[in-house]
Order: sequence, then structure tokens, then C-alpha cells
Amino acid sequence: MSESFDAVDIIRIKRDRGTLTNEQIDWTIDAYTRGVIADEQMAALNMAILLNGMDRAEISRWTAAMIASGERMDFSSLGKPTADKHSTGGVGDKITLPLAPLVAVFGVAVPQLSGRGLGHTGGTLDKLESIPGWKASLSNAEMMDILRDPGAVICAAGSGLAPADKKLYALRDVTGTVEAIPLIASSIMSKKIAEGTGTLVLDVKCGSGAFMKDEESARELARTMVDLGKDAGVTTTALLTNMNTPLGLTAGNAIEVEESLEVLAGGGPSDVVELTVALAEEMLAGAGVRDADVAGALQDGRAMDVWRRMISAQGGDPDAALPVAKESHVVTADRDGFLTELDAMKVGVAAWRLGAGRARKEDPVQAGAGVRMHAKPGDRVSKGQPLLTLLTDTPERFGRAGEALDGAWRIEDAAPASLPPLVMDRIS
Amino acid sequence: MSESFDAVDIIRIKRDRGTLTNEQIDWTIDAYTRGVIADEQMAALNMAILLNGMDRAEISRWTAAMIASGERMDFSSLGKPTADKHSTGGVGDKITLPLAPLVAVFGVAVPQLSGRGLGHTGGTLDKLESIPGWKASLSNAEMMDILRDPGAVICAAGSGLAPADKKLYALRDVTGTVEAIPLIASSIMSKKIAEGTGTLVLDVKCGSGAFMKDEESARELARTMVDLGKDAGVTTTALLTNMNTPLGLTAGNAIEVEESLEVLAGGGPSDVVELTVALAEEMLAGAGVRDADVAGALQDGRAMDVWRRMISAQGGDPDAALPVAKESHVVTADRDGFLTELDAMKVGVAAWRLGAGRARKEDPVQAGAGVRMHAKPGDRVSKGQPLLTLLTDTPERFGRAGEALDGAWRIEDAAPASLPPLVMDRIS
Repeated sequence: MSESFDAVDIIRIKRDRGTLTNEQIDWTIDAYTRGVIADEQMAALNMAILLNGMDRAEISRWTAAMIASGERMDFSSLGKPTADKHSTGGVGDKITLPLAPLVAVFGVAVPQLSGRGLGHTGGTLDKLESIPGWKASLSNAEMMDILRDPGAVICAAGSGLAPADKKLYALRDVTGTVEAIPLIASSIMSKKIAEGTGTLVLDVKCGSGAFMKDEESARELARTMVDLGKDAGVTTTALLTNMNTPLGLTAGNAIEVEESLEVLAGGGPSDVVELTVALAEEMLAGAGVRDADVAGALQDGRAMDVWRRMISAQGGDPDAALPVAKESHVVTADRDGFLTELDAMKVGVAAWRLGAGRARKEDPVQAGAGVRMHAKPGDRVSKGQPLLTLLTDTPERFGRAGEALDGAWRIEDAAPASLPPLVMDRIS
Repeated sequence: MSESFDAVDIIRIKRDRGTLTNEQIDWTIDAYTRGVIADEQMAALNMAILLNGMDRAEISRWTAAMIASGERMDFSSLGKPTADKHSTGGVGDKITLPLAPLVAVFGVAVPQLSGRGLGHTGGTLDKLESIPGWKASLSNAEMMDILRDPGAVICAAGSGLAPADKKLYALRDVTGTVEAIPLIASSIMSKKIAEGTGTLVLDVKCGSGAFMKDEESARELARTMVDLGKDAGVTTTALLTNMNTPLGLTAGNAIEVEESLEVLAGGGPSDVVELTVALAEEMLAGAGVRDADVAGALQDGRAMDVWRRMISAQGGDPDAALPVAKESHVVTADRDGFLTELDAMKVGVAAWRLGAGRARKEDPVQAGAGVRMHAKPGDRVSKGQPLLTLLTDTPERFGRAGEALDGAWRIEDAAPASLPPLVMDRIS
């Protein structure tokens, strides 16, 4: 077998700040999938890409080559528009749960392929698995049935989508090359484009609890992903949203489902409602639905109705009691004043250490574990008032979770002059 | 077994332009040798080092850690100074052959551990192996005996010196990370320092036929290696020498031995004599020998005498006829004028393709193959006069060798105003 290119030549091009051709990129992804390019060669190439970058055409082709490594889903037989949302991950980010049924209310199918959590950010599937009976894995036929009615499905992505990305992500994870915007963008977008959605809305988080800590990087990632979606013919927009503070008042699994149910019942924390509505409006606009009364569908029970049928369709009991952590520990305010900061990363790490998240892919999570917040920045607090409740089945975890919370909040005499907006910008 | 550090953390430090501590460097080399750091992790780290660099303290410690991975030789029992030369590799570079016996004439032992050629640059051992009976591999005891008398030895390096470097070099070769000055310098210097020489003279080549094409890179490599030698207590200097044109009038194996014998007999091409004498003077000065009549030792047969006894001590017959290529092809000048350029890289590639070099480590070389030059830049030539003679045992090689020579020389009406100096600078 004679190969079209040589791996060392490809590495040298990116090392020396050159540009790869379409043919070179196609060969690189294909040869890596076939094992012709060795892991150590791909690792050197990834580091060169991280440090020297790729241009828009290269990233677009890289993404297309990863899509071509596997199967593509096709929802055209549904006879209705499809829309999907992807979040880059944050603390307390349960938005997918109320969002998917809310959008389906308006006749847009929502094929929400989701993942499990790793590290301080939770995973949508972990949260839903706290509902008794609910299962994440569906066949393609089951998925299509649920997308017909009730119209929204949240399930695990099959292993056939962008297998090159799976191999590449595992390599990046052990070689310090996760943090390359072209590689992050193509990893996310290859799966989302292969999934076959017509409209995609990206929730790109920015702040202490997000993967992107600074606005400039978050904006570059959003811009790159929106361009990739457009290049592939997917209607794509992004909201740049604040992740310095956790979303809502819960970070965990069952407690986030509980908060999502409050939103679906027309209540819930205002930031969760605001972001759910903003993302639903983006998805519906992309899918061609104008003037939908999104907030009304939360108030009048239509979104809750889709939720209940969606959970039932995947074996879950929407009326079953959710698991509750065996042990709890309350953290109180040490002075009077206004809460001016509540750090998303520190709360996320505490929830993770309490058992809500996992350190390795194969670890189990505790359904009841997490952190419940009793105040958010801007709120007045009194000395001795509960600020946080830590929840776990294994109380020996309280110690390290408490350490993670060192310096997690500030209480000051004056209320903050203004709070930063949740939705910082829209990129289209 | 708990490890002191985590490979991903080490990679991130260099990726983000940080500085590694001594403990981190020691662990990195040791953990890579033990297989705890995987090839893909070391490849990512190497690319980060190539693109972001290392400071002098890091390179020095990296080198020390590679030395510590294996054995160190000790020549103190010889009771005389030791001096060694390392060339970064060029075309027609047979200097080691006359140089080692020449320096030994003055009572300085020369433990010249050498390698085989790869690509367009020849290897000293390949050249010497064209002498009937001569063997490259010696035990340490045999090596010490020859260093006592006649005082110079040219042999293969044992596998016990800097084994981490061997593993690392093989990795760099397939991951596009050979061309990193900190890694080149530490690779060369770890072996040379482990070899235990008291004085080291570096011949850093610069030009088309050299590894370093531009003077700035060659100068940086020389500076880095001289600093590394000094940091390790070895008296180290470097000559920066021109490699735009081949050295001497031969590029091959047996034909380079033949030219070396001319130099040892007091004749030979003036550039080969000039560089041999310059490097010998550097080595002797480093070893504390002043006012040696180096050129005289070539004229009066003392260097030739050491050569003959050195070759005999390694089983070679200094009087045996050298192998001659079965086939030859003469290339002539196509016009009258002055030869103004003769490109070292093109001549080197032609000699390689004729069979003098190898593409893979396990390939054999032809003793008689190579290129004989009949003119050098500055010489007047006439139309039809022989410029080059191509030599090989396998005439089907003439075609591709001829292609390599396309544009290898220029003949112009006027003589070049001045030829660049062979020794461009001295770095100490």
C-alpha cells in the first residue's frame, strides 16, 4: 500500500506555520483512523496546531474529514425542522432539560445527543439518570419514534458518529493538547454536524466555571464554531454567556432535575428561565418559527407535558420521587452584607468532590450529591444565614469539598452597583 | 508506585512558555526511559520545546539527565589529556580521518566515537569500513589499549552511553521534532560528555549541505553546545564552517579514505588541510599543548605513522588496495568560464543515490560509490572538461543521481570576486 503523504511532512508544514491542503487533511484524519499515523505523530501535530493555529478553510476541512470517518444521521423523513443546542459546559447548567421539551412544543424536533460529565462540569445524561427507570441509550429507530412524538429526545450519542474525533480526543486528553481552539471547535462541530440537525445554537460559556476563562478566547471559539456550522450548511448561531457564577441555585444531578421541573412548572430561578427562553428563541428562529410565545409555553404547562411524555418514552417515571442525598452540611454567612461573588469553578469542584461528578470516565456518580445555593450575587445576607448546603451519601467527602469552597464567595457592605448580563453577546 | 509529577502538567508548562525545574526535567527523562511517559506525551512535549524553546539552565539539566540515564566513560587512568571533535555533518567531511592521528602525534589521546551516515551526509564509520579488515566495534579494554598507543581511536559508540537520547532521537525522527536547537544540542552533548573527553571541539557546519542552512541557526546551535560543554566542565570551543560547497574533491566512502591518505602524506586539497589543521590546533590548545607544529606533522609522516598503527590496531590493513566502483560516468562542463558554485547538498544527494549513503539505518552502503570532483569554485573550466565523475557498482543509479545534480553548479564569465572563508567564526 502506497500512502499519498508522509506524516512527518504533514507535521513539518504545521510546525513551520504553513497551511495544509484539503487532500493532506483528508489523508491525515483517515491515516490516523487506520493507524498509519501513529499516536506520537498525531500528538506532535496537535501541539503544532495548538501553538501555530489553523485557518478557517483548514478547520472546516478537518471537521469534514472527521465527519467522513463515521456515519451521518438523517432526520429528513420526520417532515419537520430540527434544532439542537450545544453548551461548552458550566456549573449548574441544566438548561437542556427544560429547553428540549420547550422547543418541541412549537413543532420543531430536538434531537439532543448528550454526554456524561467529567471533572467539575456536570453531564446532562448523569442528571437525567437520577430519574428512576430513565435510560440514555436508544436505537436509531426508537430515537426517530420519539422525535415524531412528543418531538424531543435527550439521549447518548452512538459510537458511529465521528469515530476519528473519539480517538483524537482521547489522545489530546493525555498530551496537553485539549486547549486548542481549532481542535475544540472541530471536535464539537464534527459530532453536531454528523448528527444531522438543521439548526444549531451554541451556548459558549465564559468565566471562572467555564472551559474558556476569558471573553476573547470564548468569542474566538464561538466565531470558529459558527463559521464551521455555516460552512457545513447548518443554520448556526451562538450566545456568549456568563459562567463566573453557577446557573440557578443547584449544582448536582437530582437537584438539577428538581430545579428544571420548577422551570417547566412556570417558576424556577430567573437566570435559568432567562437562558432557557433565550436559547429556545434562537433555536426556533433558526428553524423558521417566528413569534412563538416561549415564556407562555412554560407558564401554561405545554412544555411540562412534552417533558413528561419524553421521560416516559425513555422508560423514566416522571412522577417518581427523585433520589435524596443521605447526608447534608450547611455553610453559613460569617457576616451581614451583600453577596457580591459566588465562584462557579469552586462550587463546581465542591459538587464534583461531593460525588456529583467523576474524575475518570468509568467512575460512578451519586444521584443525590451536589451543592444547593441559598443566595446569589446581589442578594442581601445576614450573619449565620445558610449560604450553601452540601449534599452527599458519603460524609467523609465534606472535608475536601469544603476546602474547594475556600474563598468561593464575598460578602461586602454595599450591594454590587450592577451585575454583569447573563447573555453577553450573540454571534451569528 | 506514586510518581513525582504528571506528564500532562509538564507538557502544559512548556506549551504555555513556562520553565521546567531541575526536578521536573530529571523526572521527565527518567519517566520516559521507564515508559511512564508515553511516546505521544514526549512527542507533544518535544514539539512544544521546538516551538517555545528552553533556557540555558533547562537545556543543561536536560542534557545532564540524559547522561545520567546511562554509563559514563573515564579516561583518567590514561595519564594524558583527551580531546575529541564533533562535526554536525557535511558533504565530503572526512576530517576525522586525518585529524585523530594528527592530534595523537602530540601526546593527546583522541577517543573519537563516531556514527554511520543517514541521508545525504556520510558517516565516518562507513568510510573506514571500506578499508579491508577494519572493524568499528571495540570493547572498552581494546579502546583503552589503543588510546595508550598509538593514542587515537575511531570506533562505534557503545549502546550504554545516554540510552535516553537513543530513545528520544528515534521518536524525534518520526515526529518532525529533529530541528529543535535545544534538543539537537542536548542530544549531541549528552553523548560527548558521557564519553568522558576533557576537551571537545565542535565543527558546526552552515550552508546548503549542512543541517543548519543559515548562519544565525548555526551560530545559536554552536553557542548552545559550547555553553553545555562548559556547564559540564568540558573545555569546549566551536568553529563555524562553510558547507555550501563539499569539503575536498571527494564525497563517498573509499574515495574519501583515499583523499585522507593524501592529506596524511602531506598533500591533499587545501580546504581539507586547512580545516584539519584548524581543528587540530583547537583540540591541542584545549588540551594544554601550545606551539605544536601541526602542519609539520602532516608533512614529516608522523601523523601517517599514527594512522597506520591505528588502522592496524582495529584489524585493518593500511596497505591493502581500497575498493573501486565497478562503473563510472563523467559529467562535463557545458561552457568555458569560471566555476562559481558547486552545491554541497546536491552533490551529497547524488553520492547518496549512487550508493555511498543509506535511506534507512539497516541499508548497506557501497564502499566504492560516490562523486569525485574535478574542479572547485574559483577554478577556470573549459567546455567539455570533466567536472564530476559519478561512481557506483549499480549503473541503474546514474539516472536519479544525475537528476539530483540538476542546477548543482554555475559557470560564469568572470571569476568570483572573493570566495567565502571556510572557517567563518570561532565560538568559545
